[in-house]
Amino acid sequence: MQTQDVIVIGGGVIGCSIAYYLAKKGADVVVLERDRIGAHASSAAAGMLGAQVEMAFPGPMSDLCFRSRAMFPELGRELYERTGLDIELNTAGLLRVAWDRTEAEELRDRARWQRELGGRAEWWETRSVREDEPEVRADITGALFLPDDAQVSAPRLTLAFARAAQALGVRLLEGCEVTGFLTDGDQVTGVETVVGTFRAGAVVLAAGAWSGVLARRLGLNLPVFPVKGESLALRPNRLPHRKTLFAHGCYLVPKADGRIVVGATEKEHDFSPGVSLGAIHRLAHEATRLVPSLAEADVLSYWSSVRPGSGDGLPLMGRLEAVRGLYVASGHFRNGILLSPITGALMAELISGTAVPELAPFSPDRLLESTARR
Amino acid sequence: MQTQDVIVIGGGVIGCSIAYYLAKKGADVVVLERDRIGAHASSAAAGMLGAQVEMAFPGPMSDLCFRSRAMFPELGRELYERTGLDIELNTAGLLRVAWDRTEAEELRDRARWQRELGGRAEWWETRSVREDEPEVRADITGALFLPDDAQVSAPRLTLAFARAAQALGVRLLEGCEVTGFLTDGDQVTGVETVVGTFRAGAVVLAAGAWSGVLARRLGLNLPVFPVKGESLALRPNRLPHRKTLFAHGCYLVPKADGRIVVGATEKEHDFSPGVSLGAIHRLAHEATRLVPSLAEADVLSYWSSVRPGSGDGLPLMGRLEAVRGLYVASGHFRNGILLSPITGALMAELISGTAVPELAPFSPDRLLESTARR
Amino acid sequence: MQTQDVIVIGGGVIGCSIAYYLAKKGADVVVLERDRIGAHASSAAAGMLGAQVEMAFPGPMSDLCFRSRAMFPELGRELYERTGLDIELNTAGLLRVAWDRTEAEELRDRARWQRELGGRAEWWETRSVREDEPEVRADITGALFLPDDAQVSAPRLTLAFARAAQALGVRLLEGCEVTGFLTDGDQVTGVETVVGTFRAGAVVLAAGAWSGVLARRLGLNLPVFPVKGESLALRPNRLPHRKTLFAHGCYLVPKADGRIVVGATEKEHDFSPGVSLGAIHRLAHEATRLVPSLAEADVLSYWSSVRPGSGDGLPLMGRLEAVRGLYVASGHFRNGILLSPITGALMAELISGTAVPELAPFSPDRLLESTARR
Amino acid sequence: MQTQDVIVIGGGVIGCSIAYYLAKKGADVVVLERDRIGAHASSAAAGMLGAQVEMAFPGPMSDLCFRSRAMFPELGRELYERTGLDIELNTAGLLRVAWDRTEAEELRDRARWQRELGGRAEWWETRSVREDEPEVRADITGALFLPDDAQVSAPRLTLAFARAAQALGVRLLEGCEVTGFLTDGDQVTGVETVVGTFRAGAVVLAAGAWSGVLARRLGLNLPVFPVKGESLALRPNRLPHRKTLFAHGCYLVPKADGRIVVGATEKEHDFSPGVSLGAIHRLAHEATRLVPSLAEADVLSYWSSVRPGSGDGLPLMGRLEAVRGLYVASGHFRNGILLSPITGALMAELISGTAVPELAPFSPDRLLESTARR
Repeated sequence: MQTQDVIVIGGGVIGCSIAYYLAKKGADVVVLERDRIGAHASSAAAGMLGAQVEMAFPGPMSDLCFRSRAMFPELGRELYERTGLDIELNTAGLLRVAWDRTEAEELRDRARWQRELGGRAEWWETRSVREDEPEVRADITGALFLPDDAQVSAPRLTLAFARAAQALGVRLLEGCEVTGFLTDGDQVTGVETVVGTFRAGAVVLAAGAWSGVLARRLGLNLPVFPVKGESLALRPNRLPHRKTLFAHGCYLVPKADGRIVVGATEKEHDFSPGVSLGAIHRLAHEATRLVPSLAEADVLSYWSSVRPGSGDGLPLMGRLEAVRGLYVASGHFRNGILLSPITGALMAELISGTAVPELAPFSPDRLLESTARR
Repeated sequence: MQTQDVIVIGGGVIGCSIAYYLAKKGADVVVLERDRIGAHASSAAAGMLGAQVEMAFPGPMSDLCFRSRAMFPELGRELYERTGLDIELNTAGLLRVAWDRTEAEELRDRARWQRELGGRAEWWETRSVREDEPEVRADITGALFLPDDAQVSAPRLTLAFARAAQALGVRLLEGCEVTGFLTDGDQVTGVETVVGTFRAGAVVLAAGAWSGVLARRLGLNLPVFPVKGESLALRPNRLPHRKTLFAHGCYLVPKADGRIVVGATEKEHDFSPGVSLGAIHRLAHEATRLVPSLAEADVLSYWSSVRPGSGDGLPLMGRLEAVRGLYVASGHFRNGILLSPITGALMAELISGTAVPELAPFSPDRLLESTARR
Repeated sequence: MQTQDVIVIGGGVIGCSIAYYLAKKGADVVVLERDRIGAHASSAAAGMLGAQVEMAFPGPMSDLCFRSRAMFPELGRELYERTGLDIELNTAGLLRVAWDRTEAEELRDRARWQRELGGRAEWWETRSVREDEPEVRADITGALFLPDDAQVSAPRLTLAFARAAQALGVRLLEGCEVTGFLTDGDQVTGVETVVGTFRAGAVVLAAGAWSGVLARRLGLNLPVFPVKGESLALRPNRLPHRKTLFAHGCYLVPKADGRIVVGATEKEHDFSPGVSLGAIHRLAHEATRLVPSLAEADVLSYWSSVRPGSGDGLPLMGRLEAVRGLYVASGHFRNGILLSPITGALMAELISGTAVPELAPFSPDRLLESTARR
Repeated sequence: MQTQDVIVIGGGVIGCSIAYYLAKKGADVVVLERDRIGAHASSAAAGMLGAQVEMAFPGPMSDLCFRSRAMFPELGRELYERTGLDIELNTAGLLRVAWDRTEAEELRDRARWQRELGGRAEWWETRSVREDEPEVRADITGALFLPDDAQVSAPRLTLAFARAAQALGVRLLEGCEVTGFLTDGDQVTGVETVVGTFRAGAVVLAAGAWSGVLARRLGLNLPVFPVKGESLALRPNRLPHRKTLFAHGCYLVPKADGRIVVGATEKEHDFSPGVSLGAIHRLAHEATRLVPSLAEADVLSYWSSVRPGSGDGLPLMGRLEAVRGLYVASGHFRNGILLSPITGALMAELISGTAVPELAPFSPDRLLESTARR
């Protein structure tokens, strides 16, 4: 039996970020990871910081995304100082390609409100797109250029949070699956794991797609579910496009090691491992549709992971009314990498006892149908 | 909600064998596998059928091992007929090498009782060993030759059980983690999984090293725990030894595709993935100690898995008194491949309502400390 | 400097088969392999023994294919005896699917002459095809069933030839690239390699796609060129089809370990490594066209290799007039696995001094434009 | 037939660097690579820039190493600008550990002359070493700290040179093995390859360990030979040491992605692929001897490559007297990554017609025993 201030369940990018920011505040933290750090969605992500490309309308979510994206330059330096790990922030921007006039019009509308919120967004005609990135297919209908939508290495970001947290004293246990909770009345007091019991004043559920499953052990019906994604990495035979390319059907993210990551399928409620032939077929089709010369690129690898979807499409971040001492940070779906710094920073404040009004719209209680407690 | 006769939790070699033998009896069965068929210990095993080499004393366990080993020739043909999968039964026998006189004496004692039980076991002096397998180190102290201790491909056996079961109508769901049980009084009526609820008259817990964790959801303290094992595969640069070589420290199993499998470490209560540098070091040391020329063999791959250890070293097979409708088949430790046919056959009889006295010594109740049911 | 009877250049299936049959005749042989045994086309092949499916017309080539195919059952037993390696001969037969009436008519014509030559060939209507293999697409136009077109594991066959040859005394050097030839007038007397010089009375050029490049060192313009092929392996989630399926566009070969091999692209004069996105795209498209349910199968791996094409589509087997002591066995294109036993057996006779009239139609001299010797 | 100013044989780090610096001068260059860019020693290297650690005495070689090392900071920025690829320059320095007093004394002597040449070198007692890197074994006898011996990602540096060169117009052909030379009297006029003939005014032999083999086609006895090296990569379970650790027996290089690279064996005249069990054994032994806690690190991967050794241990860089138009840049052994910038820059000047006196000590003619030209 071990006791600490905070138990974080899940060694993905969210759990590790929370542990890191908590440790900076001096908390005594343990992170419990079933597999290896970043073994699932956190390392499988293409690493886009798509604060604008992923946002279809303004609101608290887009505010949070903007704010988190802005943290990366400083964060990258800080993590490099602390760990020697380079998160490979690429700030060349993103081109959101339109296949036809309808889509082009939608994207221009989106550009308007994003500019009003202070986001840069320029409409580029097809000729400009191809002057900049000549390999893009000729018959697109222009693209929205988002100069501030950056990208990082998702596995490195996750590992850097973890190693920086460890360097600040966080204990990080791998191969440590949480199997149940210890409670005292309506207060959670710790967790049971496959390798023993841990006690703490606060427990943070940051278990990605498995958060809903774990919450059920407390009789909570937390609407977090898996959305399986399958991806490819390519080795082009020349200098690849510099900007991230994003179209309906796929995205192409050029990494600092020369690979291009092609993502991703979305299969709801699918926890299965593996990459299907159908998925490979679709990704190959879409990638060569957008950049035909990629047909000649070598395929380097492929993988799948399970992202945490949420009932209303927004992440769940905050404390739960029903169970004292229990915090949730999950449901980030495709925005986990982007939102990891702000999630870690705000959750650390909340857990430390500070009121964090920005988190109110993301309170897990908004979605909770409390079921009968066993 | 789906209903069937029997739910088998776990798509390892034990679960798939039970499903296969149940299906042969006409039962309506679903197998629920968290990952992929045979993804853990069942595919990681070297596939030894060490009915004699693993047995230090006579008793019901050695009887069962003898009996199960004898099933393989016919089983191999049957599964090939049904699936086209070849389990690669190798009947060249096994040499249990002694490092010194003490060990040699122990092995000769063992040979005596095994012969009394009808097992073949011959003591070979070092010269004979090296005439037969010239690559074995010269300064051993003889070896016990066990002509009937055979070996198979563990991944293929597991897959063949699974495919044969499917061909008989068994449904096999992968990516389907069981998260809890449905009960009605002291009767188990089904399971909850990450992808929905299943109902059945009988539930078989065959979840390998995770069986203990799952049993705790029913308030049962089933003493099944993980024993992590790490292994290597080699590609020798000439014809390898034909017999399996087994010494204190490692075993070397020559496979039908030309590889030699080197196993294995044993780390109790360790659920972590990965293969450590220390493990690689030890296996390399032991393998080159036993067969020095293997230093020149290429390393092809390495892997780890988690075997199900049991409280008293014997498997748990049978029904539970405390929970009606619940059956357990787990805790086979290093004998899961060997015991899979007899386990499947006897458990299928038991679940079908036949009395199976041979299973009495392995009743899970022998080890059960019932904890407070939640 | 080492001297032996015969130097075989190339440790692929052809070179290893020749070495094996030579060793059975008592010859002193060394095999020189640049990489590892079977590292290229020999291990990358799907292993079809398509004596009938690959033959569009009768003649010496089809005779040879029939004859070689008939050698496999006995060869498999013999190699297993000698090595413990199982070549996994699958004799379930092959379905050559027709997409339309024109193709169906062609296939029926082919069946006629093949039956006259003693080959079994049955036309199956679509209904029969799908009764036998229900996963095949419904809108095909029947299929030709070739019960004797079998398949083996190509990597295992290659390794088994190599290990059996070694067991008979053949020396097999890996990592040993041949860089030139030693000559004495018009007699070849040995070879130079990256690790030294070897002398022999006979040199056999069995270097697959690299045979043409090597022949140029002797001033010979041997028309053997690379034809790159890319393939996939799948893990279906149920029992796969038992028969090999072959259609215009791809073939699907079910292996004894549960995998399905999908092949293959054909890119002439391409020596490059790697598997392109375009190739993956095409194979995925064709495989799911023929068996739609394979879209759900996991992709396990992909690979490429370089087969030896020949100027007129027939292999080159025999001695060369221009250079005494030099033998060629190359250019087998897609029939190297199928033809390996007969090639090895006949070449061994020829090299041993026996006249082999069956090889006359395949004499390398038929294609040789002798260029100016340097 | 294609004509250009310069043909570079070999797409390793040396060939790509030369192509890059030539292209900056406006030359029309083609690079011919048998496999893929950086497929061999260039990507297998640990990436140390050991200008001081690898130098046992002063001289032109150490001058060149110092000078090349100093180019990296600017080069890294330049390549990032041009390609988006980050070479991951790590400037934390290197600790050259002494196992005993004799070795400590030698290292202190070395420090003296290196300081005289302007190199920084500090002797640290064991206590200081362990304050800085606490995981280092306690019973070492101090270490020489070389703050300027940096490290980069070798695969990325190679790829960045290649992509930057392509962006400047260099053509880079992969899968293009050079099989011979075109000559006109004593002038080389081009090369023959597996995919056709190329003509140029200058041909640069930068084929790494294969340079000697190729030179023999021109009747030149160039003493460049293979030295096989085998390496491992580890994933430590905490923040690894920041400085590169180098001891007699192995080196441990912490990379910017969290891996530690452990290198390397040295097997002269060995062109074979693969990693042997003996090599793994030795590396595991040495790594855990230097940093015992690495026994718990996961093994991530292992690989081998073939470095170009030279007859007298110094690289061969310059033109050849015997064959006009032929340049050599090879034999860099363990210093290829370190010396790639200066090699590229100076060779580009030389090929452009500038006199380069710094290259005189490395002239390939110093080692050339001209054999009879064929």
